[in-house]
Amino acid sequence: MASPKRLRVVQYGVGPIGLASIRAILARQDVELVGAIDIDPVKQQRDVADLAGLRRPTGIRVSDRPEEVLASGEPDVVLHSTQSHLEAVLPQLKACLEARASVISTCEELLFPSARQPKLTRELDALARSKESVVLGTGVNPGFVMDTLPLVATAPCQEVRSVLVERVVDVAARRGSLQKKVGAGMTPDEFRRGRRKGQVGHVGLLESLHLLAAGMGWELDRVTEKVEPVLAKKAIRTPHVKVQPQQVSGIHHVCRGFRKGKQAIRLDLQMFLGAKKPHDRIVILGTPAFEVRIKGGIAGDEATVGMMLALARGVHALNPGLRTMLDSQLPRFRSAE
Amino acid sequence: MASPKRLRVVQYGVGPIGLASIRAILARQDVELVGAIDIDPVKQQRDVADLAGLRRPTGIRVSDRPEEVLASGEPDVVLHSTQSHLEAVLPQLKACLEARASVISTCEELLFPSARQPKLTRELDALARSKESVVLGTGVNPGFVMDTLPLVATAPCQEVRSVLVERVVDVAARRGSLQKKVGAGMTPDEFRRGRRKGQVGHVGLLESLHLLAAGMGWELDRVTEKVEPVLAKKAIRTPHVKVQPQQVSGIHHVCRGFRKGKQAIRLDLQMFLGAKKPHDRIVILGTPAFEVRIKGGIAGDEATVGMMLALARGVHALNPGLRTMLDSQLPRFRSAE
Repeated sequence: MASPKRLRVVQYGVGPIGLASIRAILARQDVELVGAIDIDPVKQQRDVADLAGLRRPTGIRVSDRPEEVLASGEPDVVLHSTQSHLEAVLPQLKACLEARASVISTCEELLFPSARQPKLTRELDALARSKESVVLGTGVNPGFVMDTLPLVATAPCQEVRSVLVERVVDVAARRGSLQKKVGAGMTPDEFRRGRRKGQVGHVGLLESLHLLAAGMGWELDRVTEKVEPVLAKKAIRTPHVKVQPQQVSGIHHVCRGFRKGKQAIRLDLQMFLGAKKPHDRIVILGTPAFEVRIKGGIAGDEATVGMMLALARGVHALNPGLRTMLDSQLPRFRSAE
Repeated sequence: MASPKRLRVVQYGVGPIGLASIRAILARQDVELVGAIDIDPVKQQRDVADLAGLRRPTGIRVSDRPEEVLASGEPDVVLHSTQSHLEAVLPQLKACLEARASVISTCEELLFPSARQPKLTRELDALARSKESVVLGTGVNPGFVMDTLPLVATAPCQEVRSVLVERVVDVAARRGSLQKKVGAGMTPDEFRRGRRKGQVGHVGLLESLHLLAAGMGWELDRVTEKVEPVLAKKAIRTPHVKVQPQQVSGIHHVCRGFRKGKQAIRLDLQMFLGAKKPHDRIVILGTPAFEVRIKGGIAGDEATVGMMLALARGVHALNPGLRTMLDSQLPRFRSAE
């Protein structure tokens, strides 16, 4: 029987992250899955247990009718993992808010939406306030390793001159959709065309940069962003892609923020097949100065789901509106018991 | 001229940390020093600039009359660094609250005061609420490296089985009072007597453990604490102490928390003269599992002042009462501009 304190959750988006989220929700006692939404025709009306590779049916079936799921499920929180751009997911977020559910989303632009979409940000904030609900973007990257964690690392500093964050991910160990997203297997020309169309690359680095700057109260006078393909030196083959020498194995993405003419933030993200010594690294130049290293780096998809659950559990402590990680109470794992 | 937004601050306690705090306050545009309190007779009526080794007089003179300083200074926040035990500092904290000032304190027990002083905790919480003010304990250790930072590191975890934190500090590079506090130069017998009287050792490790457990919602069924002297293998001499071979060079302090019969948290603190490879290290066993390392470790006193300033700047976002780091909005450096 459901305890009255259980958090009622709808999973919006049943892709790889959504399924990992569903497995995590079903494993917890303090969270109850009350609905699942996805537009994919082949997933319609299938029990989420079936899609998530779990034996025991849940009775929760995937539906492409958000309004129905939200009305019947009466969720406290929607965990939302569909797309990267705010404009594309706006109607989805609005539907959740209209049902008076708060939303924790992995939509990358939502980490710091005013960076690219100031008008939509104001609109969404006003709607969330009027519905006494919260919308917040999070995840592992953006959402943690290149923004939240570096920000918290600055807490003991009397002064910070600059923050450098480096993340190196060997995407060979990651899901196929991510390998394709970083352009693995493309020719350099295909990569450039894909970049122009917004089909390859990482969304969110600019958002991380803006979150970092806003968190420290830094006004940036200039921001640069550069995405280069990484070319394979030898043939690479994964279960998902084949890459010939001189084809693209992934990306090298750098965002830099300048303050008073000097580089104040540098975010350096390398995601490619066969990347050596994957790691996360944060360098704080200030008083005190120090370097934080995570050998191997924090595993992407598992951590994204972890962040969603951590923020969902803390959502009631936030004031209604469009919130960011800056508003979050100390983000942390919260036990189900 | 003072901008209306400047935070008015009194420094309560003008020891090594208090003086570092005063230097940091005077270096910022957004914070204004409006008073300084200390009981030390030799410091009375001296300009804090003089004590802090600064050329330009501030007009702020040390006083041993808290009520007068608080009434005339009208601080928004008191930065409080006097003693480690809540009982000893309680009258000081009450005086601040009576003046309707919030308090950010480095009193180690105040990090998680209900651990040792549940009654005083309730009393202080009630007073703070009635005065619409905040009391919060912070610092670098306890306050950051062995509690807040490890907690934030757990945020991306779907599940955490255990958290191990290790801090190794070479106190040879630290202030003399800290070298003495860890027993450097004592015989093993003197150390044991000093321990019994509460005169040597580190206060706060138990508080860090309880903050970690509470933050994750873990109920611990057992907590152990062990403090051992570290003995010098050869003679060591610092500007502050002389240590003969087989005399004490510092401490090895371990706190462990058990949950469902298994070790769930282990905090291991080594502070001694000549400690090799000083570092901070956080190991999270869970999903995902990873290890965070800070080579050299985070410098103590500088970081304590940084934490106080970061929390002071965020104090208005907290609800009145006795708060802990768990309630803090994302702790971070906040620029003075």
